[in-house]
Amino acid sequence: MGGIDRALPWKDCFVLPEGVIYLDGNSLGPLPVAAVRRVAQAVEAEWGGRLIRGWNDAGWMAQPAKLGDRIGRLIGAPAGSVVLGDTLSIKVYQALAAALSMRPERRVVLSDTGNFPTDLYMAEGLIRQTGQEHELRLAEPEAVEAAIDDRVAAVLLTEVDYRTGRKHDMRGITEAAHRSGAVMIWDLAHSAGAVEVDLAASNAEFAAGCTYKYLNAGPGAPAFIYVRPDLAEQAEPVLQGWLGHAEPFAFETGYRPGPGIERMRVGTPPVLQMAALEAALDIWDMVDMASLRRRSIELSELFIAEVESACPHLRLVSPREPSERGSQVSFAFDQGYAAMQALIARGVIGDFRAPDIMRFGITPLYLDEGDVCRAAAIIAEVMASRAYEAPEFQVRAKVT
Amino acid sequence: MGGIDRALPWKDCFVLPEGVIYLDGNSLGPLPVAAVRRVAQAVEAEWGGRLIRGWNDAGWMAQPAKLGDRIGRLIGAPAGSVVLGDTLSIKVYQALAAALSMRPERRVVLSDTGNFPTDLYMAEGLIRQTGQEHELRLAEPEAVEAAIDDRVAAVLLTEVDYRTGRKHDMRGITEAAHRSGAVMIWDLAHSAGAVEVDLAASNAEFAAGCTYKYLNAGPGAPAFIYVRPDLAEQAEPVLQGWLGHAEPFAFETGYRPGPGIERMRVGTPPVLQMAALEAALDIWDMVDMASLRRRSIELSELFIAEVESACPHLRLVSPREPSERGSQVSFAFDQGYAAMQALIARGVIGDFRAPDIMRFGITPLYLDEGDVCRAAAIIAEVMASRAYEAPEFQVRAKVT
Repeated sequence: MGGIDRALPWKDCFVLPEGVIYLDGNSLGPLPVAAVRRVAQAVEAEWGGRLIRGWNDAGWMAQPAKLGDRIGRLIGAPAGSVVLGDTLSIKVYQALAAALSMRPERRVVLSDTGNFPTDLYMAEGLIRQTGQEHELRLAEPEAVEAAIDDRVAAVLLTEVDYRTGRKHDMRGITEAAHRSGAVMIWDLAHSAGAVEVDLAASNAEFAAGCTYKYLNAGPGAPAFIYVRPDLAEQAEPVLQGWLGHAEPFAFETGYRPGPGIERMRVGTPPVLQMAALEAALDIWDMVDMASLRRRSIELSELFIAEVESACPHLRLVSPREPSERGSQVSFAFDQGYAAMQALIARGVIGDFRAPDIMRFGITPLYLDEGDVCRAAAIIAEVMASRAYEAPEFQVRAKVT
Repeated sequence: MGGIDRALPWKDCFVLPEGVIYLDGNSLGPLPVAAVRRVAQAVEAEWGGRLIRGWNDAGWMAQPAKLGDRIGRLIGAPAGSVVLGDTLSIKVYQALAAALSMRPERRVVLSDTGNFPTDLYMAEGLIRQTGQEHELRLAEPEAVEAAIDDRVAAVLLTEVDYRTGRKHDMRGITEAAHRSGAVMIWDLAHSAGAVEVDLAASNAEFAAGCTYKYLNAGPGAPAFIYVRPDLAEQAEPVLQGWLGHAEPFAFETGYRPGPGIERMRVGTPPVLQMAALEAALDIWDMVDMASLRRRSIELSELFIAEVESACPHLRLVSPREPSERGSQVSFAFDQGYAAMQALIARGVIGDFRAPDIMRFGITPLYLDEGDVCRAAAIIAEVMASRAYEAPEFQVRAKVT
């Protein structure tokens, strides 16, 4: 455990409510202190003061590519290969549609049962749309590589499983896809800002991710898409909105794709959300992902050890081997929903994923050993006291 | 000219920079004073204070439908038929894809050359996607009705032309489309908050619009989509993201569309932009669209009269008949780009649309006779002095 990493200096950069240990940054990252002022500036000085002129003066129009480059550094993507916009669902659709158009003779989209459902739903919708008898094939996470054959047009996977935290071998699976002639698409929802990602080295054609989880850009923050630079000029954007046009302000009636990654833009970018993202990235610009990953593993190992020693009823469903895990730790427990409510009532905020998974995000930017140990102690208390049996914790809220 | 309407009481509800007469609310509405505090609250109290719990506690998850109902009132749409999300480009794609799936035996999408280009680009992209030899047919705006035949699957039109302000006959064209068995989709980008719209009476199947223009919800504010209630349960969302699923938090691997308009949701809604929209709608909730429209026409007539009497070189390209016009006034001028820059330098902010159109939005919530007359006087001064010939106004900026 590297001493210099023990106290990452960013905890004070976040607003963390009193009495809360926040283990849900894998679902929604906390508020960066600087985002308060940055968003206010976007609202008051830019929107209020510059009005329509903000598109030029305040740089709104250039933000999607500029912020894309800053995210690129965190995921091993070269400058000019990442652009912000829309939601992750939309970006997955774009990537998959472009991938299918690169393999017109193939008919299978391969994904796994551990993928986040929206990726599967978007694929289903796209497949129905093509009317060409494409098929969505789902393998178990462990069986993906074996399921890649020469009928597969595209492999669409989320690198880190949203429930278990199980991490795919990005490089190995991409190589397997390429050996079979398939296009590779990685969903980095639980990777960007969580683990080291080297998109360029993986050689994957497409990736997409969101910015409201580990990147801390706020609720509803925009998604990003990556296209491998050698393909950027041939990828068909499919959702060809005007801001992906070569000359949006020429207002031509016919579409001409913009240069490189710009063509993956669709409509007007969400300027206020972009401002929050910018403040979040001011922190990320200073982060070394290798150090962060080491800290994530240290804290995760500690958390697992503490919980397991005190809570025999909780079954670790995340991989025990740290290198096979993302930056979250999940335990299965048949009363998991109620237990999570009991924890939240005590200030330990994780979340629940059906059918029985208690999920805890380990986010070293704003968590330390003290947090992790305190959280484990509270979990132990809830389990020992069976506090989750209280009626108020049994009622299911609509969402979390 | 109705006396009680002369001073609409909303001007103080907006931040209007000193020295600016803002005639570009048709491109980006100004900042509602209350949005400053409302967005700050969403950032600090909700995101910062509630973290992930904001999805329930702060009502984030319900906002798209709740705000949709409030927009519904402005466009004649019943409760439960409008939902917010994404960008207008995406919502147009969704509507058109759903429309085509309702007319599988037909192959033509009909639009007009006055449609905003992104609608045409999105249609093009969708058509290539279907691989079924669909065709995008473009008519001149005046010739749309005559171009509807029994090969047309869907008619996709923007009610108010973004360049000229020419207003289609929504009811008449919808009837013509239906007589030929086509599905009707209206883009309300320049209609919502600008003119009276009665979607229910028009009987159109789909509509979509944006909220950052006349509705004043801020740069990059989300779009909305309307589906006629009797079709809501059969419309295929195509972009079937997880938040349009019947049970998003069941995390099923297969998609089941949500109830009614909810299925048109895709991914995570932009919470900060929604907060700004909410503040903007607090004003709109008090507005009577018939009164607003009367004021818009009064102010537009005054503006046209003042400009025309002083500027013989400017040619009105908006319809002279007020009922055929949206809430903007456009003049053609061969030096239009430079002239608009000269105006902006003098605080009169309109915008320019290629090739030669100077566009002025007339927005009675925050403009009055004094503004309109002062703007006309400054336009007259710029034209008379040929101020636009100065070199600094000839250089084209990238965007406006």
